[in-house]
This record gives sequence, C-alpha cells and structure tokens, in this order.
Amino acid sequence: MARTLALPGMTEPRVDRLITLLASRPMLILSGARIARELGLSRQAVWRWVEKVRALGVHVRGHPGAGYRVEQAPDVLVPGLLRPRLRGTRFARHIVHFFRTASTNDAAFELGWRGAPEGTVVVAEEQTAGRGRAGRSWYSEKATGIYTSILLRPPLPPARAPLLTLLAGLAVRDAIASLVDLPGLDLRWPNDVLVGPRKLAGILTEMQAAADRIHFVVVGIGVNVNQSAFPPPLAGLATSLRLETGRPWSRLELLVRLLQYLERDYNRFLSEGAEFVVERFRRLSSYARGRRVRIRSGQEEFTGTTAGLDPAGWLRVRREGGRIETVIAADVEAAD
Amino acid sequence: MARTLALPGMTEPRVDRLITLLASRPMLILSGARIARELGLSRQAVWRWVEKVRALGVHVRGHPGAGYRVEQAPDVLVPGLLRPRLRGTRFARHIVHFFRTASTNDAAFELGWRGAPEGTVVVAEEQTAGRGRAGRSWYSEKATGIYTSILLRPPLPPARAPLLTLLAGLAVRDAIASLVDLPGLDLRWPNDVLVGPRKLAGILTEMQAAADRIHFVVVGIGVNVNQSAFPPPLAGLATSLRLETGRPWSRLELLVRLLQYLERDYNRFLSEGAEFVVERFRRLSSYARGRRVRIRSGQEEFTGTTAGLDPAGWLRVRREGGRIETVIAADVEAAD
Repeated sequence: MARTLALPGMTEPRVDRLITLLASRPMLILSGARIARELGLSRQAVWRWVEKVRALGVHVRGHPGAGYRVEQAPDVLVPGLLRPRLRGTRFARHIVHFFRTASTNDAAFELGWRGAPEGTVVVAEEQTAGRGRAGRSWYSEKATGIYTSILLRPPLPPARAPLLTLLAGLAVRDAIASLVDLPGLDLRWPNDVLVGPRKLAGILTEMQAAADRIHFVVVGIGVNVNQSAFPPPLAGLATSLRLETGRPWSRLELLVRLLQYLERDYNRFLSEGAEFVVERFRRLSSYARGRRVRIRSGQEEFTGTTAGLDPAGWLRVRREGGRIETVIAADVEAAD
Repeated sequence: MARTLALPGMTEPRVDRLITLLASRPMLILSGARIARELGLSRQAVWRWVEKVRALGVHVRGHPGAGYRVEQAPDVLVPGLLRPRLRGTRFARHIVHFFRTASTNDAAFELGWRGAPEGTVVVAEEQTAGRGRAGRSWYSEKATGIYTSILLRPPLPPARAPLLTLLAGLAVRDAIASLVDLPGLDLRWPNDVLVGPRKLAGILTEMQAAADRIHFVVVGIGVNVNQSAFPPPLAGLATSLRLETGRPWSRLELLVRLLQYLERDYNRFLSEGAEFVVERFRRLSSYARGRRVRIRSGQEEFTGTTAGLDPAGWLRVRREGGRIETVIAADVEAAD
C-alpha cells in the first residue's frame, strides 16, 4: 500500500522526520550524534540531509562543535508536524507532502485513482501549475499560502458534490474566524472566501464517479496566508491574511484548524444531510440573498438579484423580469 | 499526441493493418510479396506478423507458394475495419483496440485523463476484469461479445450524466432492432437491455468532473452477441443475440450501427437537451411505468409501482402507501 501510494517528488520520510525533530525542539541545539541516533543515520548522512533541508528553504543553523537548531519553529506543512495535531480525525492517517508539485489536486486525483483511503491529505509548499475553477490558474507562491487537496469517498450521487464545495468554504471561513476577527470576511457562491471584494481563499472540487455514485472526490483548497503582495493581474483582486491583519500567521495552525472544522462538518453532512450546510452558507454569505450580481455561465450572462440557495446548494437568481433562474455553475460578481 | 495516447498492450498498428488487408480481400490469396509491399515490411517480417495474428485467434490460411488468405471476413473489431464505416462520426478519429485488456472503461478513463479527444473509442476482444454497475463484474468471453468504452466530453454538470446511460441503452436497443426483430426486446432502468427477463447488454457510465462540470465521461457498453451458453451463475439471467435468434451475428456490424445511433442521439442531446431521451426510454421500456418492481438501493429495499422518469432521468416509484420516491441509483427487479 505505502509503496503504490508514493508519488514522484513527494517529500522523503527522512526529510519529514529531520524537520519534525528540529522543529519540535526550537530552543535546543541538537548534536549531530543525537540526530543520527534518532533518525537511524550515520553522522555523515545527517550532514547531507541537513544540507538538503536547507536547500528546501528551511533555516537550519549550524553551531560548530555543538550541533544544529532551527531559529524558530519552521512553518512547514510536513506530515510529522501535522499528524499529532490531527489525531482522532480521518486526516491523520495518510498525509502526502511536496515542497513543490504541479497541482495538489492532480496528485490527490492520482492517489484516489490508485485507491488511497478517504481522508488522504496532499499538501504542497509551492504549486507550479495550481488550478482554480473553470480552467483558471491559482497563484501558489512558495511557502506563503496553503495549497492542499483532500480525498473523500462519500457514498453520494455526483449531483451532491457541489455541497462539498460549500462545506469546504465554510471550514476555511471558520478556521480563519477562529484565529482572528476579520471584518468583511465573506463567502461568494460557489467557491470563494473573500474579505470585502478580494479573494482570500478558493475551493476546487473534482471527482471520479459513476453516473449515480461518487467513487472519490478531491477537494482542493488554496488560502492566501502570508503573501505581502500579489503580481499585477491579481493586485486588487486577491488579498492575504497578512495583508488584512498586518502580521504573519502560522500556516500550520490554520491548516490544522481548517481540517478540524472540515472533519466536524463532513461527519455531520454524512450523518444528517446537507441542510445545515446550505443554511449556514446562506447566513454567512452576503452573496446568497438580496445581492445584485452579474452571472456569467458559459456563453450566457445576465444581471439579477440573488434569492437564496436551493437544497442542492445551487444559487437562485431573480432576473430583471422577475423570473427565477437556478444556477448550477457560474462566475458571480457583485453588480452593485 | 499519438505517443502519449498509446496504452500498454493495445493492438499494434501493423497487426491492425495486416488484419484489415486480409479481411478486405477474403476471396483473394495475397502473396507475401504484396503484403510486404503494402505494409512496408520485409517478407520475413510478414511471416512473423502472420504468425502473431494467428496466435491472436484470427484464422489465416497459408497457401504454400501462393500466399495468405482469411477463410471469411474475420469478425475482429480492429480500427482498420471500423474506421471506414464510421466516417463522418466523432468515433472515426481515435480507436484503440485490444485483443485482451482488464477493462475497456479503465483504459478509456486512462486515455481521458491524458487528454484523449471526445469520441475516442476503446474496444477489446476480451476483458479479464470487465466491470458492471455497483462493483459487479461483466462476463467478457473472448470474441463473442462487444466490449467497448466511449469517451465523451459533454459541457454538462455531473447531475446530467445518468441521461447518457439512458441514451446509450437506447442506441444499443436501436442497433439490435435494426438488425433483427426481437420480440421481448426491452430496457430496464437505469442501464440494462433485456430480452424478456434476461440481460442482453449493460451500460456502465463513469466520469471525471468538477463539482459543477463534467471533464469527461466514459460510457462502457457490453453486448452479448455470439455466446452460445453462459456459465452457471449467469445461466438463466443472461442471454445473447445468438441464443435468442439461433444464428451468429457480425459484432463489427452491430458495433458500427450502435456507434452510428449513438452519434445521432448524442448530437441531438447536445443541441436540444434530454427530453427526447427520457421520452423514448419511457415509451420503449416496460419498466418505466405501471410495473411492479423491487428496488434495492444501498441498505434500503422496497416494493412499489413505477411511475415514469423525471426530467433528470431518475426513476419515480409509487410505494405501497402511495408516496412517490425518486430513485437516483438502484437495482430494479420485476416483482410481478
């Protein structure tokens, strides 16, 4: 199992363990001998692996004659640091980490295809081809955002998958709200977390399914955490937690909370259905009801006023003439 | 493109061309020299490839000093024989043939994943792990049935995929009805073609999709054509065209017609929507309305009377008490 579920380029277990060991003792200088003992390596090998970890951008300070230490707990999303915080959730079992990959959704899809279990988490420090909805790209600067994809195997028909997008958006929102009171924190149907008009996070839900049953779903989540600026096409459209609050945040802490909220809400969804998801989204999103919006869906484009979500999680929009449209997939923009 | 869309084990182009050449001239003995010229091979190589084709079960007769000939047009579903008959349809462009593969749906899914175009057709003479709905297997004896999977990329939400199952069932039914008048030919929601109570063909629709949009769909079709018996667990449950009519049928001819009907109906579906699919299925299936059925869906099981299909292609069933249930996924069995 472990073998077939390995992906090319994923972070080696020894790198994970070295980072985890150093990160867990930020106030200690760990001797090469001790690291060698704890990791089952020669002291020569420790030196080589430390170099490797440095090359990946983790600041490891060498103290000649004494050993190694990280200046402060590094904010790296490796399994060794995530797993202890996720104990008791379905997300602790199988965590796959990349320093760099094309797209965490692609990696998770590949794992799903090979039979990886529900709850598998893929995390990357950097994506070279991060994807968003409708074939768009997702800006994935190294070690500043959270780029993660969650594999789920809900016993549901494909028509219910959009509810998982809403559910994940709510988990992101709740995780952020649990860290900081952020005025203007908002949800935009179907898949964005906003602060005012600017995008803070996005969800991309993809699946493999029979016509009547989901085999697996990949819920991709991108959160802008510590970016201090965005390149021109995104400036003004995107924001980060750091830009909104004026200070950096622990990506590890935010990801842990996000997965904890996701665990809670996904369990509730499986046991009692989606009513609470739709109801909470309605209540927490300024876009769900009474908002003037421009809808773009394929070739079609129209303006109207949002009129709530239907039980499937689809958006209802009242057109100028009064007719109500149910929108399954669209870009929604404030028109006021 | 051609390179990345090659799959391990698929029939080599030269085998395809040799079979096509021999099959197109069943009344001629083709000299080794001529075959060598037409295929761009040495005469030594012709001999080796003929042996290879024989080993695959195609009867090639050698006439010493004269050449080779097939006794009668072999009923092998290679691209060279299918393509000329499919000209003008989306299915002529990319046909992948296997003498043996695990599952044509798996192969088509792999191709879809790699970007194969809409209309890609996968055909196998034999499946070693043919699949049906709900994780069941599909009996796939060598060269007696049609085992094919069609790749489509409809611009639709996942909730509409079940309509493609109905549409494919109709195409199979129409293709059979165009060859022979078969009393008792019937459709059973969602995915079976029957003769009386026995299964003649089945559909397995699988997809890869975003929450709101299908990326691609694989429509797997299995048709029992020339089986003269079925092994014990299937005897009494399955039937073949040969068993029903007392004579063998050309799988090639049936597959060509099936794909032609599929082309016609799929185009209509894309341009005008699914109303005609649901309407025709309702009219041609004895299971759609007024039939006492037992429904098994996951843990649930109940008896009722069918009450038509809804516009999404889902089955409506009136329970004993009078309440109408809309069934998204289930096994349906006659209870009368």
